[in-house]
Amino acid sequence: MEKLLKKKAIILFSGGLDSAITAALAKSRGRELVALSFDYGQRHRIELSRARRLAKAMKIKRHLVLRLPLNKIAAGALVDGSPVNKSGVKKGAPSTYVSYRNGVFLSLAFSLAEAEGAHEVWGGWCGADFGGYPDCRADFFKAMERAAGLGTWEGRRGRGFKVVAPLAKLGKAASFRLGKKLGVDFSATWTCYAPKASKPCGLCDACRSRAKGFEEAGLKDG
Amino acid sequence: MEKLLKKKAIILFSGGLDSAITAALAKSRGRELVALSFDYGQRHRIELSRARRLAKAMKIKRHLVLRLPLNKIAAGALVDGSPVNKSGVKKGAPSTYVSYRNGVFLSLAFSLAEAEGAHEVWGGWCGADFGGYPDCRADFFKAMERAAGLGTWEGRRGRGFKVVAPLAKLGKAASFRLGKKLGVDFSATWTCYAPKASKPCGLCDACRSRAKGFEEAGLKDG
Repeated sequence: MEKLLKKKAIILFSGGLDSAITAALAKSRGRELVALSFDYGQRHRIELSRARRLAKAMKIKRHLVLRLPLNKIAAGALVDGSPVNKSGVKKGAPSTYVSYRNGVFLSLAFSLAEAEGAHEVWGGWCGADFGGYPDCRADFFKAMERAAGLGTWEGRRGRGFKVVAPLAKLGKAASFRLGKKLGVDFSATWTCYAPKASKPCGLCDACRSRAKGFEEAGLKDG
Repeated sequence: MEKLLKKKAIILFSGGLDSAITAALAKSRGRELVALSFDYGQRHRIELSRARRLAKAMKIKRHLVLRLPLNKIAAGALVDGSPVNKSGVKKGAPSTYVSYRNGVFLSLAFSLAEAEGAHEVWGGWCGADFGGYPDCRADFFKAMERAAGLGTWEGRRGRGFKVVAPLAKLGKAASFRLGKKLGVDFSATWTCYAPKASKPCGLCDACRSRAKGFEEAGLKDG
């Protein structure tokens, strides 16, 4: 059965490097992907055009870009206009933490999954780097799976939902090497949180982490 | 402290009877409410004008109506154009179940709560009536509280979030009597899932349940 019929899965697809690598991995593992991106008032909205381009290049047939005015309710520099930190990763909540963003994204992904008959939500969360995002941690994902199992008809019928985070234990360098092996077009992805005139700033946490990852992996970015 | 400073709380505010009663109760218990409604592609969008009117009448200072295109992703007769059942409540998933709707609503409410410095999300879920909505049950709410505790900075700092569902154990008749006591303007609320020309249909599960509740309570609707 598994061999004949591709297993459908939702992927949270930001247009970033990690979600592109995750999508490539999911495809290599026989998943038929439905990609979900959010136009949530993020200051790096440019990532959405990359997400569209990547989805096309990766032959993901169904790609939804959902408008979600998270900027109307959530706090955090990505959505509320407050400044993005550019002086290196610090302890505690990063300026770019958007209140419960992945809680919202995952819940919408579960809603879509139930409607589509899928039971997996893949995402490019990379636990090794940022301790700063509590909504990227494994114990949070487990709790979300449990909630979705209790709060959906599919779950009540014993067909719950899995959060699949294959990069969570890898670290950036190993992730990027995996991406290289899978043929991901790094140049098509977007990472920066604080772009100016469509150029990455090179100084925000996300830019720093990307640069460090490529350096450690011994790979060229782009 | 409690006496001097009102405790802030989020309320999911549909414009329906149950959320209006819940709001009145929360206010009577000293909560300063931030009301959150969703324009989610529901066929009974008329409820939003009632929500606005009610919020004003109830002197809720902050009322957000968030556009959320749930109809682009979720399945269910309230959002996808399939017919609403009008022949009485049945076993199993009702036609009006929208995939993981309360999972999505609650996650957004937690995001707002964290941004607002609130730690409670109130809602008018009425467990007694509909077994049809798994995302209205107490075990689901507990799981959501746990997820929000793990997935937010506030939660990690030991200041988690509570889902408050005061009508969950009451049944419709008792809820309506409570509403009467609290001075809720029943006539301003909206219940019907399948209105025609701004009139309730009288036949959908929600209309039937409302009529039955008023009958049992010995109260007049409107």
